[in-house]
Amino acid sequence: MYDFGLLNPVWAGTRAAELTSDTAFAQAMLDVEVGWCAAQVEFGTAPESITGAVAAAADIDDYDLVAIANATPDGANALIPLLSAMRDKVAEADPDAAVYVHRGATSQDIIDTALMLLAARVGNHALQQLKTSVHQLINLAEQHATTVMIGRSLDQHAQPISFGYRVSQWVEALGSAGQHLETVLNNLPLQWGGAVGTSTWWVDYFRAEQPETDPMALVNHQRDLLAEQLGLVAASVWHANRIPVTTVAQSAFQVVAAAAKLANDVLTAVQAEQAELAEPTAPGRGGSSAMPHKNNPVLSIRLKTAAQVAAGDLNTLHTGIIANTAERADGGWHTEWAAFRDLLRTTGAVTEILAELTAGLEVFPDAMRGNLEIHGNYLMLGRITQWLGPVVEAHEDIPQGTGKQLVQETCQQAIANGDDLAETLAAKLPEGVVSVSAVNKVLDPSGYMGGAASIVAEVNSRYRKWST
Amino acid sequence: MYDFGLLNPVWAGTRAAELTSDTAFAQAMLDVEVGWCAAQVEFGTAPESITGAVAAAADIDDYDLVAIANATPDGANALIPLLSAMRDKVAEADPDAAVYVHRGATSQDIIDTALMLLAARVGNHALQQLKTSVHQLINLAEQHATTVMIGRSLDQHAQPISFGYRVSQWVEALGSAGQHLETVLNNLPLQWGGAVGTSTWWVDYFRAEQPETDPMALVNHQRDLLAEQLGLVAASVWHANRIPVTTVAQSAFQVVAAAAKLANDVLTAVQAEQAELAEPTAPGRGGSSAMPHKNNPVLSIRLKTAAQVAAGDLNTLHTGIIANTAERADGGWHTEWAAFRDLLRTTGAVTEILAELTAGLEVFPDAMRGNLEIHGNYLMLGRITQWLGPVVEAHEDIPQGTGKQLVQETCQQAIANGDDLAETLAAKLPEGVVSVSAVNKVLDPSGYMGGAASIVAEVNSRYRKWST
Amino acid sequence: MYDFGLLNPVWAGTRAAELTSDTAFAQAMLDVEVGWCAAQVEFGTAPESITGAVAAAADIDDYDLVAIANATPDGANALIPLLSAMRDKVAEADPDAAVYVHRGATSQDIIDTALMLLAARVGNHALQQLKTSVHQLINLAEQHATTVMIGRSLDQHAQPISFGYRVSQWVEALGSAGQHLETVLNNLPLQWGGAVGTSTWWVDYFRAEQPETDPMALVNHQRDLLAEQLGLVAASVWHANRIPVTTVAQSAFQVVAAAAKLANDVLTAVQAEQAELAEPTAPGRGGSSAMPHKNNPVLSIRLKTAAQVAAGDLNTLHTGIIANTAERADGGWHTEWAAFRDLLRTTGAVTEILAELTAGLEVFPDAMRGNLEIHGNYLMLGRITQWLGPVVEAHEDIPQGTGKQLVQETCQQAIANGDDLAETLAAKLPEGVVSVSAVNKVLDPSGYMGGAASIVAEVNSRYRKWST
Amino acid sequence: MYDFGLLNPVWAGTRAAELTSDTAFAQAMLDVEVGWCAAQVEFGTAPESITGAVAAAADIDDYDLVAIANATPDGANALIPLLSAMRDKVAEADPDAAVYVHRGATSQDIIDTALMLLAARVGNHALQQLKTSVHQLINLAEQHATTVMIGRSLDQHAQPISFGYRVSQWVEALGSAGQHLETVLNNLPLQWGGAVGTSTWWVDYFRAEQPETDPMALVNHQRDLLAEQLGLVAASVWHANRIPVTTVAQSAFQVVAAAAKLANDVLTAVQAEQAELAEPTAPGRGGSSAMPHKNNPVLSIRLKTAAQVAAGDLNTLHTGIIANTAERADGGWHTEWAAFRDLLRTTGAVTEILAELTAGLEVFPDAMRGNLEIHGNYLMLGRITQWLGPVVEAHEDIPQGTGKQLVQETCQQAIANGDDLAETLAAKLPEGVVSVSAVNKVLDPSGYMGGAASIVAEVNSRYRKWST
Repeated sequence: MYDFGLLNPVWAGTRAAELTSDTAFAQAMLDVEVGWCAAQVEFGTAPESITGAVAAAADIDDYDLVAIANATPDGANALIPLLSAMRDKVAEADPDAAVYVHRGATSQDIIDTALMLLAARVGNHALQQLKTSVHQLINLAEQHATTVMIGRSLDQHAQPISFGYRVSQWVEALGSAGQHLETVLNNLPLQWGGAVGTSTWWVDYFRAEQPETDPMALVNHQRDLLAEQLGLVAASVWHANRIPVTTVAQSAFQVVAAAAKLANDVLTAVQAEQAELAEPTAPGRGGSSAMPHKNNPVLSIRLKTAAQVAAGDLNTLHTGIIANTAERADGGWHTEWAAFRDLLRTTGAVTEILAELTAGLEVFPDAMRGNLEIHGNYLMLGRITQWLGPVVEAHEDIPQGTGKQLVQETCQQAIANGDDLAETLAAKLPEGVVSVSAVNKVLDPSGYMGGAASIVAEVNSRYRKWST
Repeated sequence: MYDFGLLNPVWAGTRAAELTSDTAFAQAMLDVEVGWCAAQVEFGTAPESITGAVAAAADIDDYDLVAIANATPDGANALIPLLSAMRDKVAEADPDAAVYVHRGATSQDIIDTALMLLAARVGNHALQQLKTSVHQLINLAEQHATTVMIGRSLDQHAQPISFGYRVSQWVEALGSAGQHLETVLNNLPLQWGGAVGTSTWWVDYFRAEQPETDPMALVNHQRDLLAEQLGLVAASVWHANRIPVTTVAQSAFQVVAAAAKLANDVLTAVQAEQAELAEPTAPGRGGSSAMPHKNNPVLSIRLKTAAQVAAGDLNTLHTGIIANTAERADGGWHTEWAAFRDLLRTTGAVTEILAELTAGLEVFPDAMRGNLEIHGNYLMLGRITQWLGPVVEAHEDIPQGTGKQLVQETCQQAIANGDDLAETLAAKLPEGVVSVSAVNKVLDPSGYMGGAASIVAEVNSRYRKWST
Repeated sequence: MYDFGLLNPVWAGTRAAELTSDTAFAQAMLDVEVGWCAAQVEFGTAPESITGAVAAAADIDDYDLVAIANATPDGANALIPLLSAMRDKVAEADPDAAVYVHRGATSQDIIDTALMLLAARVGNHALQQLKTSVHQLINLAEQHATTVMIGRSLDQHAQPISFGYRVSQWVEALGSAGQHLETVLNNLPLQWGGAVGTSTWWVDYFRAEQPETDPMALVNHQRDLLAEQLGLVAASVWHANRIPVTTVAQSAFQVVAAAAKLANDVLTAVQAEQAELAEPTAPGRGGSSAMPHKNNPVLSIRLKTAAQVAAGDLNTLHTGIIANTAERADGGWHTEWAAFRDLLRTTGAVTEILAELTAGLEVFPDAMRGNLEIHGNYLMLGRITQWLGPVVEAHEDIPQGTGKQLVQETCQQAIANGDDLAETLAAKLPEGVVSVSAVNKVLDPSGYMGGAASIVAEVNSRYRKWST
Repeated sequence: MYDFGLLNPVWAGTRAAELTSDTAFAQAMLDVEVGWCAAQVEFGTAPESITGAVAAAADIDDYDLVAIANATPDGANALIPLLSAMRDKVAEADPDAAVYVHRGATSQDIIDTALMLLAARVGNHALQQLKTSVHQLINLAEQHATTVMIGRSLDQHAQPISFGYRVSQWVEALGSAGQHLETVLNNLPLQWGGAVGTSTWWVDYFRAEQPETDPMALVNHQRDLLAEQLGLVAASVWHANRIPVTTVAQSAFQVVAAAAKLANDVLTAVQAEQAELAEPTAPGRGGSSAMPHKNNPVLSIRLKTAAQVAAGDLNTLHTGIIANTAERADGGWHTEWAAFRDLLRTTGAVTEILAELTAGLEVFPDAMRGNLEIHGNYLMLGRITQWLGPVVEAHEDIPQGTGKQLVQETCQQAIANGDDLAETLAAKLPEGVVSVSAVNKVLDPSGYMGGAASIVAEVNSRYRKWST
């Protein structure tokens, strides 16, 4: 009963934290054991009569998790004491039933599978939240497909974009990460192989009981029933092949990383000096009635924090995974657990925060426009030169090869003097080369966003159906 | 010219190191610029006449990479000085051609795409090496499908397995990682979007030149030609959406992690006390003529080192990626480069080492058998009890519920006394319950490997075709 | 109430986990607030009368931590809701007292200081455990100062050492890490600076109240009293200078890393094939009555796991730290918390495990001697040649420059033929050059341990007094 | 000849890169071998006559580093082929001298010591650069001790500070990290222990040559001479006790982390919308003549990148260190090398960048003042209420307990209406309570910086002498 989340502002109080709590994990271990009994009954290797006794031991609320935690270090895993308690409960209800519990299985089968159940449960929750977010962002992108703002490169003013285009980049990242996660969630594997992964106990059993049949065919069939019970995919044993774990973890991290990009953008934009965006306000959050200028971007801060934490979790997981050996690792495996769970939990929390942030993000087009104008027409020099250079060059009065330079120098002088750029160009360049209105049209940043709106439409169309 | 690999035993002297050297990277940047000129010519936005001048600037050996490296910090990227040198070369050959070089592109387009070219080049090399390794391992697994050895859990003796089964776990991990890598390599994306990803320069250009056509359709078409030139996939811009990078990196890491598991197993097995395996010997490697007992497992040590290094690279990459912002990151992107390259390089080197190791791994079945017997029949107690318990229980002379215990106690006493287990059981248990030969059959570890051989066959069939 | 430690075999059930629980952290936050009230009273800026009301709010058991956790995300820190609850309690007891609670302080002052209190509490616990371990290891080293075993390099047989020498390397690492930790614990800093670190509120206050005195002198004096209350060192504000945090964390990691080295050595030595060491047994731990060969090295596995987890925590902490900005980070700081706490907790648990492991580590000198002999006299070839080469060379019958080679060839042939090395050399070398007994003396590995015993004595003397 | 730094904008072209190049590392290995010969001569265990031959092999420019790199994987270290080449060179000059080269040493002695030499060389370079930076920052802090700007918490406007105070936080972090580094550099340890750390070869030697003396006393004395030769500290062997490595690495990282904080602050402040600072400009760096608004903060971007890279290096190093075993690790040690070198190199580069950045950082006090005013008097509400609340409360016309609220409401209404706050308060509050000028004095942010200037003076005094 150690942690409530006081040092974890990312996930404290979230649904994701509940779905990945120790209680949820222990319940998932019970679910696997119960599912295995059911699979045996279904297959005919256990009598129907055990069902009631097993069901009577299936609710984690009936267990003493503190005691189980205290006994966890003895064998360096929590299944051992949980299983012992479960067997006692089953035996109490039906002494003959206990022998079927965990029959032929090993701790790792239960723990790995339970973690995959956790991944499924919090993963599907995350997926729903993520779809909601993407849906909200698609609408936002559409709404602001032509809302002009400055695009930033190396955090410096670069060229105009639309805010919708910026949002479409979030949509693309979150949408593709979400679709990948969905595929991964649909292929979460069962772990089932017994002590060293060869199903030895059951092969022995079936060799004795059904000597005429290939025992591994029976083993695999029975395993398939368990997979179906649990909603997982029947897979080859992966006791020491941890690619299934990295696959889930890396997919989860991609969601978190995509959210972090969005959060970083919001954190920049909500600075008082930029004020292009504001996080949605909520009672008690990030603000202060006495200091109305206070609107701490806590949602984005939590997302940014989440990404830093998740990157660390993934790293820890990888450190454990590369320490794998033989048929079960001596430490590598144990290192995975908390990191994997925290990564899942963080990912789930991220999607909850994201759904809230994207539901109410405030956009200030006037501030965007204002910021865009800070460097004035300097931003446009390239465009002007690109366009006017050849025109001037082609003029008969202009010595060959000097057109581009003439335009550049004229512009820079005008800007330096604070003169109107269009009027200066119209006046200084050979007569008739260019009109004030033509220059002003080229100087309009809202016409200088390239394919921004097209990209918004394209990206939106890619994820709209998926997100609804 | 800082580094030769003296501190990098993993990749010094490998083909992978060449394929990912700074020279190779700079060549890839040139290839992108050259490809872009070719795409423009093909599309009709540049004249055919530039081809020769561009070709004259296409060989990295004609550039001064030391000077380019020294200028790299000025703009915090290497493309800027390289491009300047390239433009000079092109202009020297044909002054009119230089304007088409890099037209409408941005540094990030070139650097990101060049890194994807590097990924393709070293990746395909790695894939070939990996297939060779998997092929060799498949043969090894087949050969040793029933070679009995002890399976280890938490690095302790657990239950017998076959060495072929152990190998099949390597095959499964390397094979699935390899197939995933292959898919990733077939989908490496082009990066092409200009300063802020909106192809603004070209949209302006096409709006002026072909006002009646959707400019982004023309942009996309021209971009498709470039992708084809480079053998990459035309994709949406991913300047600040780094999921394409994580996808490649995570796939590469899976290969390395799978190799590390194999190496860890070899390192355990080549210990003098186990001596179940030996690395292939080669002149000058890991051995000593004066000390013939010396056969340092340098291949496995390099693989283990590689995994620790690669996990670190991946972590650094992720740290960079979550720091992304706006249309180009101010540091996050720069952090990616060296880590991504080192990860690719390490992965390539790993596959070279692996191909060498799996080509000549020596197997000592006698030592495997000998190690298996260290704990004697203690290993078999569970199996004996499982089998004999019910038989004894069913005997009329045995009080109900005491059969299993009788078997256990009889066995433990026999083992403790050093008595022959089969003879003791036959003598101590009620007459006729069991024969010496029946017990001895059950005590044979080679009959106690569960589905080991079946799993070997199944896994081999999954990757045999792919690996050849 | 999310986590009990089911996925954390390293620390579940340990005293360290209690000392670093959310409850302990929240209590530490209360302790800081209470200490600050006391400091104000002592300094004279608050009336003595508040003491009772403050004391009435000082026990964390009177707070609803679930509610506080649920409110933590609102401001992205737990102090805000805790402080609100505390103020209510104080005000209930004495409405006039509440104004002094947290006066002039900021959340970060409390959270950072509370984390340092946690570091002090679990750190001193760890230090005691560590001293116990070092003390036990010193005795072990002394006892086995001349117990010969094979030294391993790259996990291969290299040259003989004594087990005591191996232990002395553990002593050196753990002892120096422990002494460093002790220094760090004696210098844990208070954090105290108000909203932006400049103690603005109190400077305003003192300027009004004692206009003739340098307000920062008063601020610093009052801060000194708080430091004394809490047993911390008064330090310059470090809101965004996180070196104090890295200093603690890195010191803790050194302890964990030193323990990991020991654990890795134990894990190698307890393998059935080596059997040089065994972990102490305990009821219910790592063993099985039915399988007496089972003695899973769970203590070492937990230590190895701990190191992998702690390395990850440290990495996460560093990721957070380098994201620091301005007067308080927007995410970097938040990333530190859980990682820092988990690192402290893991370190504490490591020292508990270590104390248990070193109290009962079993040593098998016969197995050590047996393993040493696996490569037979090959290990001694270098020594023999080094010693006999010049002697033979000096003999009048031996052509110049061939002595060393003659010795080598004679030895290698003898070993290859399985002949007795001493007798062969005495027979094959020129008469009188060497005697059988002289060779046998050189071949005795117990005389070939260099300064092993001296090093044991030296290292032991360095840490003996400290550890008791 | 793989890498020039094209993907490493942090260190390409720096002095630090040269000081840590493979060439520099190989030279350092030679220096250790040469030093060891000299120590033997000095001690009297080698003849003076070898000096010339050894000196003839002492220059790395005479070696073929490409060939040595290619041979590095054979034994998984570079010393083996380098030593072989060195011995050939020595033997060529004096056949009798070669036997003294590397006598009684092991690869790890040379490699570890050479890396410490590298640490010393680049470390002292870094220290000088760092002192220069701190000196420059001390002047900057002094100059701007009272230049008012807004302090930021969670990247939001919090309370006014002075820019000098901000700088003093950089000084404190860089100064304390620098002082720690200096201590570490003064205690860099020699590694010297032979094959398994027990100096067995030399113990044998001295036992034969000087049987009456404690051989380890002689060994230690000879080792002291080597330490003196190399400017390192004679230390107990640390082959598998890597705390000396973590100590150096962690100290280096602290420098980098302190620089990152500064860089993050600069990156925020140079945004066009804030424009409080600008990086020094230099020809060819970060700017563009065509786009004068472009001044990419490449120095800060490089510093930020450096920190992300260095955090990764440190993590990789730690991963290697916790994999240590026995008398020399099988992979853990090898993992350290490149990470340790890159961390040293990065640290050195960071100090060069920092020295350049701090030499010419431009400060714009007007912009600071302007940004501070964005939220207008909202920032001051707390201060006004704190000050006026009790005054109003004490007024006879004011009902008890309503004073504070009256002040707050009056202020908020005035701000909301855009009225002058001082005049409104003077008018709305009971007559005589407050004057316009008194309110305006309180509203002046330059009077609301708490102990900022005092802290500047205190911090400066702490590091001024050290930095010059």
